[in-house]
Amino acid sequence: MKILITAGGTTEKIDQVRAITNHSTGRLGQALADYLAANPDTTIDYVTTKQALKPKRHSNITIYTIESALDLFLQLEALTKKEHYDAIIHSMAVSDFTPAFSFSEEQLAKNLPTSSTQEELDNWFAENEQTDTTVSKISSDTEHLVLVLKKTPKIISYLREWQPKAKIIGFKLLVDVPKESLLAVAKNSLINNKTDFIFANDLTEIHGETHHGYLLSKDGTVEEAQSKSEIAALITEKIRLEESK
Amino acid sequence: MKILITAGGTTEKIDQVRAITNHSTGRLGQALADYLAANPDTTIDYVTTKQALKPKRHSNITIYTIESALDLFLQLEALTKKEHYDAIIHSMAVSDFTPAFSFSEEQLAKNLPTSSTQEELDNWFAENEQTDTTVSKISSDTEHLVLVLKKTPKIISYLREWQPKAKIIGFKLLVDVPKESLLAVAKNSLINNKTDFIFANDLTEIHGETHHGYLLSKDGTVEEAQSKSEIAALITEKIRLEESK
Repeated sequence: MKILITAGGTTEKIDQVRAITNHSTGRLGQALADYLAANPDTTIDYVTTKQALKPKRHSNITIYTIESALDLFLQLEALTKKEHYDAIIHSMAVSDFTPAFSFSEEQLAKNLPTSSTQEELDNWFAENEQTDTTVSKISSDTEHLVLVLKKTPKIISYLREWQPKAKIIGFKLLVDVPKESLLAVAKNSLINNKTDFIFANDLTEIHGETHHGYLLSKDGTVEEAQSKSEIAALITEKIRLEESK
Repeated sequence: MKILITAGGTTEKIDQVRAITNHSTGRLGQALADYLAANPDTTIDYVTTKQALKPKRHSNITIYTIESALDLFLQLEALTKKEHYDAIIHSMAVSDFTPAFSFSEEQLAKNLPTSSTQEELDNWFAENEQTDTTVSKISSDTEHLVLVLKKTPKIISYLREWQPKAKIIGFKLLVDVPKESLLAVAKNSLINNKTDFIFANDLTEIHGETHHGYLLSKDGTVEEAQSKSEIAALITEKIRLEESK
C-alpha cells in the first residue's frame, strides 16, 4: 500500500533572517513512518522540514523537504495529482498565518485605517498587502513593530478533494483544555474536513515518548493512546483494517 | 584565560506552539569554541540554544542553554556578575523584537487607535501591552492577525558596562548590501556599543563553511576572512595578542 505522511512544523519567513515557526519535533511522524515502513509491501512519501527528526533510511520511504505552508500545499497538490494514496497521515504542524506586511511605529502613524468599519479594514489589509513584502531584513529602528499576518491555505480541507478514496488521518493539537473540549473540537475538524480519523492531543500531555491522546473515527468510536509507539500501532491498525475490508 | 561565547539564534514565543525565530545554525560559535578550547589554559562559558550546533565536548567548555532574548540578558547578567572574562564573543543572533500583544481583525476593529499622534499611539501600545499576553494558543479564526512586537533589550550595549576590561567582539549581519554600507553600519555598532571588534558579514556571502566578512578593530584596521576557520583563527589571534600586550 502507498502512504503519504506529513510531519514536522512549517516556517514562515518574516525576512531573510527571521521567521515564524510552528514547534514540532517531527518525532511522531518519525515513529509512524518507521512503524509502517517495516512492512515491505508499504511505500511511503514523507513530506517534512529540514529541522524535523527524520525516519530511518528505508528503501521504501521517499523524503520531500518543504519550508512554508504554501510549499506544503504545492508539494501535496503535486504528489496527489501524480499518485493514488491508500492513506494520508497529516501530522505536520502547519502555520495558520504567514507574514503579509509590517509597519514600524512611524509607518503605522502614517498608514492608520481611517475608520473601523469592516470595509475600511478590508481595504487597509488589501492595499498594504500589495506592497512588496520581500524585505531583506526588517528595520530594528523602532520601539514597536506591527506585523500583519494573513491566513494560509487550510491544507487538511483539500486532502479529501485531492484524494477522494484515501483514508485520511488528521491531527488536532490544543493546549491545556478539558477532554470534552478537545474531543468536541476534534470531532468538528473530522466532520468539516471529511477525514476518516482525527488524533486529538493536548500539548500538556506530550513529553518525549509519553504522548497521550484520542483517536476519533468517523463512525464515532474513540480510542486512547499513551505513547508515540501506541499511536503508531493504533493508526497502522486502522489503515490496515480499512484496507482488508 | 576565561572567555564568554554566545552562539545560535533566539526564539520568542508567540504562544505555546508558535514562535519567532532568528535563524542561525550556531556553526560559527561552534568553530570558535572548538578552536579556542584547544588551548588547555582557556576556559569557556558557552551560551546557546537547544537547536544550535554545539562545540565538541571539551572539559574546558561549560554550556548554558537559553531560549529568548530576555533569557539571554538574564543569563549574561548573572555570568558577568560572577566572573571576570578576558574576552566576550557575542555571535548570537538575538531577536530585536518580542511579541507584546495580538489582535484578530475583529478585535482590531474594536481597538483602533483614535488618532495617529505619537502620544495616542504610545498610549495604544502601552494599554494593550498591559493585557495578559500569555495565551496558550492564539485563535486561528480570523483572516488577518495583527501581531504587535516590542523591542528587546539591546544586549551588546550592556556588555561593556558589565565587563569594563574584557575584549568584546560583536557581530553585525546584514543582507545583500554594498561593502561600504556594511562597514559603515559595523563601525557605528563598534563605536556605539564600545566593543573592541565587530565582525561584519553579509548573509549572501555565507554558505556552509564559506563565510566571508570583515573584522573591524577600534583602532581602525579592517581584516578580511573567507571561512569560519579563518574567522576563528583571526578572532583568536586578536584575543591572544591583546592578552600579551
